[in-house]
Amino acid sequence: MSDLGRDATSAPRSAAVASLAVVGTGLIGGSFAKAVRKQGLFDRIVGLDANPERAAEALRLGLVDEVAETVPAEAEAVLLAVPPAAVAPWVRSLSDHPGVVFDVGSVKGAVIESVRAFQPGLPSRYVPCHPIAGSERSGPQAADADIFVGRSVILTPEPETAPSAIEAAAGWWRAVGADVHLMAATRHDELLAVTSHLPHLLAFAYLEQVDAEHLTHVGAGFEDFTRIGAADPELWAGIFRLNRTPLLAALQVLKGSMDRLERALAHDQADDLNAMLATAAKRRPNRG
Amino acid sequence: MSDLGRDATSAPRSAAVASLAVVGTGLIGGSFAKAVRKQGLFDRIVGLDANPERAAEALRLGLVDEVAETVPAEAEAVLLAVPPAAVAPWVRSLSDHPGVVFDVGSVKGAVIESVRAFQPGLPSRYVPCHPIAGSERSGPQAADADIFVGRSVILTPEPETAPSAIEAAAGWWRAVGADVHLMAATRHDELLAVTSHLPHLLAFAYLEQVDAEHLTHVGAGFEDFTRIGAADPELWAGIFRLNRTPLLAALQVLKGSMDRLERALAHDQADDLNAMLATAAKRRPNRG
Repeated sequence: MSDLGRDATSAPRSAAVASLAVVGTGLIGGSFAKAVRKQGLFDRIVGLDANPERAAEALRLGLVDEVAETVPAEAEAVLLAVPPAAVAPWVRSLSDHPGVVFDVGSVKGAVIESVRAFQPGLPSRYVPCHPIAGSERSGPQAADADIFVGRSVILTPEPETAPSAIEAAAGWWRAVGADVHLMAATRHDELLAVTSHLPHLLAFAYLEQVDAEHLTHVGAGFEDFTRIGAADPELWAGIFRLNRTPLLAALQVLKGSMDRLERALAHDQADDLNAMLATAAKRRPNRG
Repeated sequence: MSDLGRDATSAPRSAAVASLAVVGTGLIGGSFAKAVRKQGLFDRIVGLDANPERAAEALRLGLVDEVAETVPAEAEAVLLAVPPAAVAPWVRSLSDHPGVVFDVGSVKGAVIESVRAFQPGLPSRYVPCHPIAGSERSGPQAADADIFVGRSVILTPEPETAPSAIEAAAGWWRAVGADVHLMAATRHDELLAVTSHLPHLLAFAYLEQVDAEHLTHVGAGFEDFTRIGAADPELWAGIFRLNRTPLLAALQVLKGSMDRLERALAHDQADDLNAMLATAAKRRPNRG
């Protein structure tokens, strides 16, 4: 993993009219549009969405300047803010587009494999990206220009990715406040299985036993713990399936931890239980 | 379960100087002191703490008017804001105190049993209470006068508990903004095993596999999901042990849910996975 350094480069600007196409005008696409507009990175933002109402809402909210049916050929940048399973088809359909194409998907390896399955190499102007930012809210009305500030954005370029495309994408992400990291797609997928996919799986599993009476007697801890369980189930089923192998591996590790805690509790082994909880609590610095 | 109704009674006031003793001047004791002062419920608040520095801090912050070594005999109300394992010894030591003694412990059945093990009946002026409010922060400096607003407070009186004591405690909790519910201690313990103790256990188990590199690449979802894992491990080991049986039962249910999700994922059964996540997501209305 390397860090390109926040100040090493700045976003490339063209003297001509620079335009951004945002494919998918939901929370992340809308937030990126809002953030780059705030920074003045592009002169024109075009929105595309499979859902015409969502695109119309993004236009109404001023997130995009125009709604289009196809990606304009002159777009300097094309953001694919669509669910991970939809990324590969878009990348394939844009393989001859001259702009920098970059996505926001939470799974990288399976998407890259899927693009390669249909063509000999990855398009050199495609930069696989994943901004680790989000919300249980969705849609253009939830767009937040500051959603990427201080967050990690992981780029997982492949050998055929053009350095100039990597630099351009990295520059845009830095311009909206993110910390850019480069790493291999497989490493990204292992990390995200632990930091994001497993917590979502757990929250969904846990909620199965929660009923209306339970909800009457919950505190802030429950609200926080289950917030990710209110996420879009279809989107998350897709993410789990695409990143199945690393996710199942992270789940095995968790089951081992749960078994050890259960044994200590069942046998009322106070010292073991205290030691396990103390170790776990240290893993999460209290940072709000 | 019954709800006494927020407006059915108001807090009892004495024409003489009414005083409150707060045993344990941490987050919950300090917050109750701050909240009742805001409401003008007591003329004088006395603080006690096993940790003299914490008591001094509560005094410095104006949460209490005075620090004492023992509970004043004239206190109309004695709040035991100590860890669950410390409640029974305090109730036993105050069995002849004329004031209403009430606690905030997250486990009720084991505490009541522990009091009964040393004396024939529960003191009639002791009202077992549990405000479902908290924070991963702790100490008097984290005290928040609004922490109980809109939160459930469960009272689990026993047959020998005096109705006047129940009404007094219920009135104070309502005065600080809480919704008061009455139920059996065993029911409380089953509910809380699901809504609070199991999520804490899970967060601790999950954190075992999180390392420093993971923490570099986390979003708001991770922060929310693991916030309860930053809670005091010693306090929570005590809670888990006191409520072991209902907690182990809730854990078995969760393991069943996890196994079903794991099987659907391992066999890439998309329909099963989608259906399970959709059901779970419905259990948690998106309420922030």
